[in-house]
Amino acid sequence: MFELDPVLAADTLHVGDLPLCRVLLMNDSQYPWLILVPRRPGVVELTDLSDADYQQFCNESRHVAIELMAIYNGQKMNIAALGNVVSQLHIHHVVRFHDDAAWPAPVWGKLPAIPYSKEKSQHQLAQLQRVIFKEKL
Amino acid sequence: MFELDPVLAADTLHVGDLPLCRVLLMNDSQYPWLILVPRRPGVVELTDLSDADYQQFCNESRHVAIELMAIYNGQKMNIAALGNVVSQLHIHHVVRFHDDAAWPAPVWGKLPAIPYSKEKSQHQLAQLQRVIFKEKL
Repeated sequence: MFELDPVLAADTLHVGDLPLCRVLLMNDSQYPWLILVPRRPGVVELTDLSDADYQQFCNESRHVAIELMAIYNGQKMNIAALGNVVSQLHIHHVVRFHDDAAWPAPVWGKLPAIPYSKEKSQHQLAQLQRVIFKEKL
Repeated sequence: MFELDPVLAADTLHVGDLPLCRVLLMNDSQYPWLILVPRRPGVVELTDLSDADYQQFCNESRHVAIELMAIYNGQKMNIAALGNVVSQLHIHHVVRFHDDAAWPAPVWGKLPAIPYSKEKSQHQLAQLQRVIFKEKL
């Protein structure tokens, strides 16, 4: 049975579930940053996914990237499957701006997270839910 | 017409071309590190690719990741589309080990590259060419 890694759970807010992936908002207000977690137990690498799940992941990643760039009017999308610290497969989708706190460096390990205020996180979640789940994938 | 970005060209060795992507070996002997560059002019984001090209990219990325992990007996695969410095779309595929120079940090901006010797690079290229182009994608 799929269970979300406790570190991922602690660092994020739950946006919702696509057919394959759990969609999480990284609780770091410095960048619009979603994490997709395929809801399959024991999966560590993208190549561990079945062919069908991998194709579904690719579709969901593309959808999320397009919607994120549109909502936030982003200047660059960073997509990465790293997992060197938390092994459960999770794929980062980070909207970047030329004046964001870490630009042009990658965001990982660069700066401590600045959590959203309660009001701001509710607004972010509502906005993301509206666009990410508006159509069937 | 597709032309490889000069920074990518300077930092890498040419392994060969898959149907969509140019395959480059990062000239850094600290990690087995391939870069896939879709041979489409003017493309910056994965979401700039047509649906058909995106699907082909996903297939080529999966193939390369599987073969890299098999050749090098890797412990983790890091796959990332960043492009904050070089805008031409290019996707990193880095084999990681628990005792590699940057572990568990991401490799970007961590340590200066240590180029391959001529002999070592020829060996690497020959080995990669053998496995990556052994089947039609």
